[in-house]
Amino acid sequence: MTKRDESADGDVGSTVVGQVNGLEVPRYAGLSTFARLPRLEDVERYDVAVVGIPFDSGVTYRPGARFGPAHIRQSSRLLRPYNPSLDANPFGAQQVVDAGDLVANPFDIVQAVGEIEQGASSLIAGGQRLVSLGGDHTVTLPLLRAMNHAHGPVALVHFDAHLDTWPSYFGAAYTHGTPFRRASEEGLFVPGSSAHVGIRGSLYDRTDLVDDKGMGFQIFSCVDIDKVGIDVTIERLREHIGDRPTYISIDIDVLDPAFAPATGTPESAGLSSRELFRLIRGFAGAQLVGADIVEVAPAYDHAEITGIAAANLAYEFLSLFAL
Amino acid sequence: MTKRDESADGDVGSTVVGQVNGLEVPRYAGLSTFARLPRLEDVERYDVAVVGIPFDSGVTYRPGARFGPAHIRQSSRLLRPYNPSLDANPFGAQQVVDAGDLVANPFDIVQAVGEIEQGASSLIAGGQRLVSLGGDHTVTLPLLRAMNHAHGPVALVHFDAHLDTWPSYFGAAYTHGTPFRRASEEGLFVPGSSAHVGIRGSLYDRTDLVDDKGMGFQIFSCVDIDKVGIDVTIERLREHIGDRPTYISIDIDVLDPAFAPATGTPESAGLSSRELFRLIRGFAGAQLVGADIVEVAPAYDHAEITGIAAANLAYEFLSLFAL
Amino acid sequence: MTKRDESADGDVGSTVVGQVNGLEVPRYAGLSTFARLPRLEDVERYDVAVVGIPFDSGVTYRPGARFGPAHIRQSSRLLRPYNPSLDANPFGAQQVVDAGDLVANPFDIVQAVGEIEQGASSLIAGGQRLVSLGGDHTVTLPLLRAMNHAHGPVALVHFDAHLDTWPSYFGAAYTHGTPFRRASEEGLFVPGSSAHVGIRGSLYDRTDLVDDKGMGFQIFSCVDIDKVGIDVTIERLREHIGDRPTYISIDIDVLDPAFAPATGTPESAGLSSRELFRLIRGFAGAQLVGADIVEVAPAYDHAEITGIAAANLAYEFLSLFAL
Amino acid sequence: MTKRDESADGDVGSTVVGQVNGLEVPRYAGLSTFARLPRLEDVERYDVAVVGIPFDSGVTYRPGARFGPAHIRQSSRLLRPYNPSLDANPFGAQQVVDAGDLVANPFDIVQAVGEIEQGASSLIAGGQRLVSLGGDHTVTLPLLRAMNHAHGPVALVHFDAHLDTWPSYFGAAYTHGTPFRRASEEGLFVPGSSAHVGIRGSLYDRTDLVDDKGMGFQIFSCVDIDKVGIDVTIERLREHIGDRPTYISIDIDVLDPAFAPATGTPESAGLSSRELFRLIRGFAGAQLVGADIVEVAPAYDHAEITGIAAANLAYEFLSLFAL
Amino acid sequence: MTKRDESADGDVGSTVVGQVNGLEVPRYAGLSTFARLPRLEDVERYDVAVVGIPFDSGVTYRPGARFGPAHIRQSSRLLRPYNPSLDANPFGAQQVVDAGDLVANPFDIVQAVGEIEQGASSLIAGGQRLVSLGGDHTVTLPLLRAMNHAHGPVALVHFDAHLDTWPSYFGAAYTHGTPFRRASEEGLFVPGSSAHVGIRGSLYDRTDLVDDKGMGFQIFSCVDIDKVGIDVTIERLREHIGDRPTYISIDIDVLDPAFAPATGTPESAGLSSRELFRLIRGFAGAQLVGADIVEVAPAYDHAEITGIAAANLAYEFLSLFAL
Amino acid sequence: MTKRDESADGDVGSTVVGQVNGLEVPRYAGLSTFARLPRLEDVERYDVAVVGIPFDSGVTYRPGARFGPAHIRQSSRLLRPYNPSLDANPFGAQQVVDAGDLVANPFDIVQAVGEIEQGASSLIAGGQRLVSLGGDHTVTLPLLRAMNHAHGPVALVHFDAHLDTWPSYFGAAYTHGTPFRRASEEGLFVPGSSAHVGIRGSLYDRTDLVDDKGMGFQIFSCVDIDKVGIDVTIERLREHIGDRPTYISIDIDVLDPAFAPATGTPESAGLSSRELFRLIRGFAGAQLVGADIVEVAPAYDHAEITGIAAANLAYEFLSLFAL
Repeated sequence: MTKRDESADGDVGSTVVGQVNGLEVPRYAGLSTFARLPRLEDVERYDVAVVGIPFDSGVTYRPGARFGPAHIRQSSRLLRPYNPSLDANPFGAQQVVDAGDLVANPFDIVQAVGEIEQGASSLIAGGQRLVSLGGDHTVTLPLLRAMNHAHGPVALVHFDAHLDTWPSYFGAAYTHGTPFRRASEEGLFVPGSSAHVGIRGSLYDRTDLVDDKGMGFQIFSCVDIDKVGIDVTIERLREHIGDRPTYISIDIDVLDPAFAPATGTPESAGLSSRELFRLIRGFAGAQLVGADIVEVAPAYDHAEITGIAAANLAYEFLSLFAL
Repeated sequence: MTKRDESADGDVGSTVVGQVNGLEVPRYAGLSTFARLPRLEDVERYDVAVVGIPFDSGVTYRPGARFGPAHIRQSSRLLRPYNPSLDANPFGAQQVVDAGDLVANPFDIVQAVGEIEQGASSLIAGGQRLVSLGGDHTVTLPLLRAMNHAHGPVALVHFDAHLDTWPSYFGAAYTHGTPFRRASEEGLFVPGSSAHVGIRGSLYDRTDLVDDKGMGFQIFSCVDIDKVGIDVTIERLREHIGDRPTYISIDIDVLDPAFAPATGTPESAGLSSRELFRLIRGFAGAQLVGADIVEVAPAYDHAEITGIAAANLAYEFLSLFAL
Repeated sequence: MTKRDESADGDVGSTVVGQVNGLEVPRYAGLSTFARLPRLEDVERYDVAVVGIPFDSGVTYRPGARFGPAHIRQSSRLLRPYNPSLDANPFGAQQVVDAGDLVANPFDIVQAVGEIEQGASSLIAGGQRLVSLGGDHTVTLPLLRAMNHAHGPVALVHFDAHLDTWPSYFGAAYTHGTPFRRASEEGLFVPGSSAHVGIRGSLYDRTDLVDDKGMGFQIFSCVDIDKVGIDVTIERLREHIGDRPTYISIDIDVLDPAFAPATGTPESAGLSSRELFRLIRGFAGAQLVGADIVEVAPAYDHAEITGIAAANLAYEFLSLFAL
Repeated sequence: MTKRDESADGDVGSTVVGQVNGLEVPRYAGLSTFARLPRLEDVERYDVAVVGIPFDSGVTYRPGARFGPAHIRQSSRLLRPYNPSLDANPFGAQQVVDAGDLVANPFDIVQAVGEIEQGASSLIAGGQRLVSLGGDHTVTLPLLRAMNHAHGPVALVHFDAHLDTWPSYFGAAYTHGTPFRRASEEGLFVPGSSAHVGIRGSLYDRTDLVDDKGMGFQIFSCVDIDKVGIDVTIERLREHIGDRPTYISIDIDVLDPAFAPATGTPESAGLSSRELFRLIRGFAGAQLVGADIVEVAPAYDHAEITGIAAANLAYEFLSLFAL
Repeated sequence: MTKRDESADGDVGSTVVGQVNGLEVPRYAGLSTFARLPRLEDVERYDVAVVGIPFDSGVTYRPGARFGPAHIRQSSRLLRPYNPSLDANPFGAQQVVDAGDLVANPFDIVQAVGEIEQGASSLIAGGQRLVSLGGDHTVTLPLLRAMNHAHGPVALVHFDAHLDTWPSYFGAAYTHGTPFRRASEEGLFVPGSSAHVGIRGSLYDRTDLVDDKGMGFQIFSCVDIDKVGIDVTIERLREHIGDRPTYISIDIDVLDPAFAPATGTPESAGLSSRELFRLIRGFAGAQLVGADIVEVAPAYDHAEITGIAAANLAYEFLSLFAL
Repeated sequence: MTKRDESADGDVGSTVVGQVNGLEVPRYAGLSTFARLPRLEDVERYDVAVVGIPFDSGVTYRPGARFGPAHIRQSSRLLRPYNPSLDANPFGAQQVVDAGDLVANPFDIVQAVGEIEQGASSLIAGGQRLVSLGGDHTVTLPLLRAMNHAHGPVALVHFDAHLDTWPSYFGAAYTHGTPFRRASEEGLFVPGSSAHVGIRGSLYDRTDLVDDKGMGFQIFSCVDIDKVGIDVTIERLREHIGDRPTYISIDIDVLDPAFAPATGTPESAGLSSRELFRLIRGFAGAQLVGADIVEVAPAYDHAEITGIAAANLAYEFLSLFAL
C-alpha cells in the first residue's frame, strides 16, 4: 500500500502521518493531495489543515481561480520534509492534512461566503490552524470571519498588488475587490496593526488611499520597499503586528507577472519570488493563526511556475506553524 | 483617414459602408471591430448587427467566455468581402455593423439576463437581424426572448455537444446548462420544429433524453450523423424547420476539441469544422432571423484556431442573411 | 462530507458507491480521482479498477508519460453517470474504483515490469476487470502477463500508429517499441485473433511487416480503413476476435496529432477521435477482460484535449464492461 | 563517429549514404539535418536535395515562416527509411541530401527572388530533383522559374486554401499572394493542366475566380472534394496533369487549422491530414519534377504538429521520387 | 450607450472625455482602444495621442511586432484613472485619445518610413504629445524626424538591450538595427545629451562601442546599473538630459526575457520590470515631448505579460505628461 | 557557399574559423550548430569544443532534458562575436567547434555514464577545453571523470537549487540527484575548494546538510547571497577556489522558474539571470578547465527564454576561456 513517513509528534505525543515517502513512491505518482499528505479522513486528528476553496465568482477580470486548488496540489509534489531556510520540519512537528475542497455555490456569492465561513470554522473548531488555497480574494472575508470566531480580531497582513477595499462592484458587496472593506465594517481585523504589502498599479482615485487609511491599514507599497529594502520592511511589519494573533493573506498577484503569470488582474513591476519568500519568512516567531494564498488562475500558467510559487508559499506557512 | 469599401445596397437603394479596405490598410492594422466593419455609431442605419455579449457567470466548469467577443473580433481580421461557398457578398448586399458589447452584470445573473434581452431587443427593434457573439450559453435565453418579441416562437436549431435543458444547477435557474429548459417553459420556440445537432458525451441520466424529447426537440446526435451523413442531416433539418422563422445557436463545443480547444466543457468525438460549415451552409434559403455563437473561452485557445472558426461561422450567418 | 451517488448494483445486490455528485459538488472541486470515483480504500469491494501506471523509462523519443495518470484524472472531471452512445450506466451497474497508481522503478525497467505485473495481478485477483492508464507502452507487457494469469491468452486488439513489435532497442528487451514482440514470444495473445488498428507512418524496413505477420497479427492500417470505412472495419475486427477473451490496448498516438498532440512519437495522418470512439464502441458485446490507454505525455498537451480524449476512452471501456 | 545507413543505389550502382542510424544514435540526438540525412557537402553526389528557404518578407498577415526550415528539420527526426503506404525506400533508392538553406535578402524581395531562383537552379543543374521547405509562398515563383530552366512549363498542382493569384499587394509584385499570377504571366506552367486543390474561405470578389480561370487553373475546392470524395479527386487530378512534368506546391494552410495551426493566414474548414496524404500519394507514377511545402510559421505551432505534418509531406515527395 | 468618465481639464478649461467607466462597463467588455479611451474621431480636441504603428518589416530575427499595437491595446484594459506612484491623473488632467494605427507599407520600408513620419507629424501638428506603440524599432527614426519638425533636436534616451546604431543590414539603410545611426546622420538628437540604457549582450565587434560613442551617446549598461544602482542612474540620466526637450524610446527587450518574452531579439540578463518603471518615473519633471514602446511581438507572449508591461509603460508616459 | 568569419588566432598562429557571418547569412538561416560555429569535422583543429549530451534517464521528476542540446543550439543563433562584459572575442581568440552530440544509451545508465566519460575524454585528449550542454545532471559525473584524467581533482563550483549529493534513488547509484556524492567517493574534486551556489528549497532531512558538508562542499545558498550580495559572494568563491583547476557545473534550475521555466525540478525563489551572469563573469582569471549547463527540458520552455539563458551561459564560458 501507500508508504508514508511517520514520526513522533512532540506536541501531542502521538504519531504523525507524513507525506508519501518520496524514496519509495516516485513524486509524480499517486493522487494529488497537497504535498502528498494524508487526507483529513485518513488520520484520526490533525494540527493543521490545508483546504482548497475553488470559487471564483467574485472576479472582475480574468476568471479561472476555481481551478487553483487542483493546480496548486499538482504543483506541490516536489515539497520535501525539511525546510532549511526556517530550520523546520513542517510535516513532522505537527499533523498536517489535506482537507479537500470546501463547496461554494458558484451562482450565489452570498451563499458561497456562508458556506466558506462555515467550512473553515468547522476545520479550526478544535484549535487547529488553517492554510487556505483559493479561489479568488472573495474567500478571505469568510476566512477572516472564521478566524474571528476562534481568535477575535486579528492583525491582518495582506500581500497584494491591490488594496481590495473597494466599496462594491456592480452592486455586489462580496467580490474579490471588496473583502477588506467588509472586514473593516465587521471589525474583523485590528485597525492599527494591519497592513497591505506590495501595493502598486493604477487606482480609481486618490481617495482610494484616503479611504483605505481610514480603515486602519498601513501601506507598504513596492515603491516603499524599493526605498527601504526587504529587511527594514520586515522589521516594520513585525513592529506593526507585535504579538497579536496574525492572519496573512497572499494574493499571488503581489508577485510580478513574470513570477506569477497565472492570475486574474496582473500588474507590472511587482515583487520577485525571492523577495516575497524573505518577507514571509520574516514572520518567524509571530503569532500566526492562519493564512491563505489566492488568485491562482491556472489557465494562464506556464510550466506550473505560478502553481509552484503558491505551493511553496503554503509550505512556508506550514513551516512557520511548525517552529 | 480610414479607407473603407463602399457599394450600392440593392435592398434599400442607399450606400453601404463596408470593411476597411484590405488593399489600403493591412489586415493586422486598425481597431478590432468585427471583420473591420464600421461601428454602429459610425453609420446612419444598418440591416444586420454583430454584437458581443461578454458574460460567463453562468458556466459550470471552465470560465473565460467573457473574453470571447474581443477574441473573435481579433480573429476576424482575415474575413474578405465575397463568400464563394454561398456566392454571397455579406458586407455589400446589406449594411452590417459592429454594435460593440452589451453590458451584463457579472454578479447578478437575473439582472444580466434582463440587460441582454433589452439590449438585443433594442438592436432589432427596426427589423434588423442579429448575430451575437458570446459569452456562455446563458445568453441564448434572453436572445430568444428578444427574437420572440419580434418574430414570435422560432424554429430553434441548436448545435452543441450538450442538450442544455437541465432544470437548474446549484439552485440557479439561469445558467449555461439550462437555457432551453427555460425557453421551453416560456414557449420561445416551436416544439416540433426544433432540434439539437451534434449531441454527444455523457449525461446525468437516461431520463435527460426523455425530458428533452418532452420539450419537443429532435436530436441529431454525432452518432446519427455518422449513420446518415451530412447531406441527409441537412435535408432532414430543413424539412424539420420548414419555412418557419428560424434561430440558430452554436455552442462552439459542437466541434471536436481538436477544432475548438477554447471552450468551457469540451467533449471528445465532435464534428470537424468542415462538417459544421457544410451544415450551416445547408440553411441557405431558410428564414433565418438571428444566430449566436457562444462558449468561446480564449484562455484555452491556441493560435486563434477557435476564434477563427467562430469568426468564420459568424461570416457564414451574415452570408445567409445576404442571399 | 463528500456527497456521492449511490445506487443498487444489480450484479451483486449490494450498494454501489458512485461519483461525487455533480449537482452538489462542482465538477472542478475535490480531489482528482478518476471521474471523481471513490478510491479503492474507500469501498469494501469493487468490480472494476481504474489504475494509473506512471512509468515512461521505456520511451525512445519524447518522454513525459509518467505524468499521464495525473493528467487523465484531472481531465476526467466532466464524465457523467450515463453513456447514451452505449446506453450504459458505467458507475451504477458495477462498482468502479480508482486504485491509485502502481509504483514502478524509473531506473530499472526489468524491476518495473515485475512491479506492474504484480500490481495488476493483485488488482484483478478477485475476478475484477481493469482499465490501466499509462505510462508508456512498455506497461502493456506486464499487463498482458497479468491478464494471462487470470484468463489465459487473449485476443489482443492494439490501436496504435506503430506496430511495437521491434526486437529490442539499444540492447533493451523491454521498451515502448517492443511489448508485442515479447508478448508473442511469451504466448500472451492468440495469434490468429489479434490485430493492430490504425497503423501508419514510416518503418525501419519492409521486413518489419513480415515479422509482424509472423507473430500472428492482422493489420488494419489507416490506409485500409480509408478503403473500407469504419463500419466494415468493426465487422472484421469482431469476426477476428470472435468470442475470445479480449484485451484492448490504445496508444493515444493512433489519433492524429491534431486530436492527441500530447504523445511521445506522433505520426501524421491518423484517426479522428470520432472514428476511434466508433471503433471502440464496436466492441459492445465482446468478451472484454481489460484495457489500457497509454502514451499520454501531458507536457505536450493543449487545453487538455489529449487528456480528455484519454479519459473518455477509459469511460467507454467502463461502459462496455457495464453492458 | 556518426553511424549512418548505407545501401546500394540501384539507379547508379554506387553506394548511397542514408540517415544516421536510429538504432545506434537516438533520434533526439545529433544535428538537425532533414530526416538526419547527410549534408550536401558530406557526400560526393546526390539525386535529390531537400533545401530550406527561410524567407517570409512576402507575407500579408502573420509572419514567421522564416523559421519554417529549422522547425521542419527538428520535426523530421522520427522519419524512418521505409514508407509502407507507397512501398518505397526514399533514402535507399536514391541519394538524398540536406542542402541547407538558401540565403534570401529579407529587406529586398526582388533580390531575394533572384537569389532563390539562382540557388534552386544550381541545385538541380545536374538533373537532380528538389524538395523545398519554405518560407512563405513568395518562394514558389523563383522555384517555378528554376524548374522551367530544367524542364520547361510544368503541370502545376497547387494545394492551398487560397488562390494566390492576386495581381499585387501594396504595390509589390512579388508577395505570398501573387506567385501564380506572376507564373502565369511568365508562362511557367501549362494552363490547361494546372490546378488549385483545397481552396476555401472568403475572397475579395467574385471576379477573383474569373481571373483565376483565365490563367488556366482548374479549382478543386473543399466543397468540390466533399461532393466527390478523395478518390475521384485523385482520378481527376491525374487525368488533368497526364504525363506532363509536374510540380506540386503545398501551402500548409490547405490543412484545417486544427491540423496546421502554425501558418500565416489560416482558414477554417480545411482538409484533414489523412485526406491530404491520400491526395499526395495519389501522384504515384506521375512525372513529378519538384515540390515545395511552404507557410509553416513555427511561433504558432503546438507540440510540433504542423512541423511533423510538413516533414512527413516532404517524406512522401521523396518517396514518390523513389518509386 | 457607452458610459465614460468626464472631468474638467484644468489646462484648457474644457471637459475631458476619459475612459469607459469601469464601474458601469466591465473591463473585459467593449472595443479595444488603448485604456478604453475615446478614439481620436470621437472627441473634438486632444492633448495627447496614443498611436499604433503596426510595422515589422525592419526586423532581423523574430518578426511579429506588427501585431504589437492590437496586443498592447487588449492588455491595457486594466489601466485605471489614477497613478499613485506619480500622483497623476493621466486621463483627467489632459485629453488623451487613441488615434488608431498609422498605415505603413509592409513591402517598401522607405515608403513606410515616410508614411510614419507624415502620420506622426500630423498628429502633433497642433502641439500635442505622442506615445507610439510599435512595431519594430525602425519606426523610431520617422518618429524622431516628426519630433524634430516640432521641437528641433531632442535629448534622446533609449532603453534597449542593443545599441541599434548599425550602419546597415543586407544593404538596407532602414532596419530595426539602424535607426539611431540614421538619426545621428540627420542630426535628430543632441549628441552630448543622449543615452542608451540597459545595454547588454554580445556585439559584432569592439568597434561598435567606439562608433556609438562617436555619435554622442553615453551608455548606461546593465553592468553599469549593477554597479551604481537605479537611483544614481536616474540622477545621472537627469543631469545628462538637463532641461532639453527629451524623447524616450523603449525597446521592450531592455527587460529580461522573463519579464518580456514577446520580443524579436531577446537577450539574457536584462532589467526587471520594477527597475524599468523606477527609471521611467525618474523622468518626472523632465521636458518630455514624446515616447515610444517598440518590439512587442505577441506570438511569443504568455498570459499577456509583455503586453501588460508595455501598456503600463505607456501609462507612465501619459502620467509624466500629466504632471 | 557558407560564409564564415575568419581571423588570426593569436595563440597558435593559425587561422580560426568562426561563425557563419550574420551580415551575409541571416541569423535564422542555416543548420543549427551552436552559435552557428563550424562542426568539429569541418575544421582541422580546435581549442574548445561545445558538445551536447542528450541524456535524461537519470531524472526523478519532469523528463525531457534529452532535447536540451538541440534546443540550446536553436536558441544560440543570436550570439555575436564580441562579448563586451568580459571584453572577449570568444570565437576569434580560439578555435571553437560544435562537436555534435555524444551517444548515451537511454536504457542503461551505467553504460551511458561510460559512453559520456569516453566521449568527453576523447574530445579533450589534445588539451582542449569543453563546454557540455545537457542532458540531466547525471552527466556531470562522467564529465568530472574525464576532467580528472586530464587535470586531476578540480575545484568544483556547482550552481544549483539542489545539492545533488543524495546517496542513491530507487536503488540507482547514477541519477541526477547523486553525481556529487559519487564524485566525492571517487575523489574527483578538491574537498575544501568546492562549493554549491544558489541552493534553496526543501530537503529530505537536516542531515542532508551535514552529509554534504562532510564531503567538503561549502554552501552559498540564496539566503546567504541575499545577506552579502553578489560581489561579496564572488569574492568568497574566488578565494575558495584559489588558482586550482576549476570546473563549473550549472543546473539551470539555479535560476528562478520565472527565468528558467524549462527544467525538471523547479524551485521557487531562485537567482535572477542578471545575478547568475554576474556570478559567472566573476570567474574571469580563474583556471577554468571545463563547464557544463544541464537540466534544460525544452517541452516546458516558453519563447526560448530558458534556451537563450543556457546558450548565453555557454557563451560566457567560452569568453572566460578566451581571456
